[in-house]
Amino acid sequence: MTHPTGRLSDVVHQRHRLGILAIADEAARVEFTYLHEVLELTRGNLNRHLAVLEEAGLIVLEKGYDGRRPKTWIVITDEGRAALSAELTALEELIRRHGGRPHR
Amino acid sequence: MTHPTGRLSDVVHQRHRLGILAIADEAARVEFTYLHEVLELTRGNLNRHLAVLEEAGLIVLEKGYDGRRPKTWIVITDEGRAALSAELTALEELIRRHGGRPHR
Repeated sequence: MTHPTGRLSDVVHQRHRLGILAIADEAARVEFTYLHEVLELTRGNLNRHLAVLEEAGLIVLEKGYDGRRPKTWIVITDEGRAALSAELTALEELIRRHGGRPHR
Repeated sequence: MTHPTGRLSDVVHQRHRLGILAIADEAARVEFTYLHEVLELTRGNLNRHLAVLEEAGLIVLEKGYDGRRPKTWIVITDEGRAALSAELTALEELIRRHGGRPHR
């Protein structure tokens, strides 16, 4: 049977993208600047990861205004929720195999 | 407070390297061919990931013979166990924040 890490997808598993999906999944939508601050990513780096997730259909970007200020919101798609669920399930199995801690 | 994914290290978190460390941590040492089969990696790809882990001091490679056949064993170091423990702790926190499943 494939090792749990064999069921992880690089698109989702990359640590910044995993953070983006996890945070986006906690709300109906999440604002770009919030992600930039919480994940401590540069705007350029965040944009690159958002492009990978959007290309994979795991998020959509909504453009709008807050007053006169342009804003971008990130919305996780159903496909994104399913991909995050598969990732968390595989990680849970990895952790279970390890009893939560490395073997002393 | 940094998001849990902000405490992950790319050296450890990359899915194949995470698999190598997790398996290596389950035994005193693990044989190259076993890893190659269980993780379904090509020998070249496995060698590249082992080099990254060895360079980071998280594993050491032991060369020997099984009869006349040359063998390579992978041994996780104390630093490797500590790095794996930090990774699993951060992943556990991520999963806990998510109640084990994405929010419906």
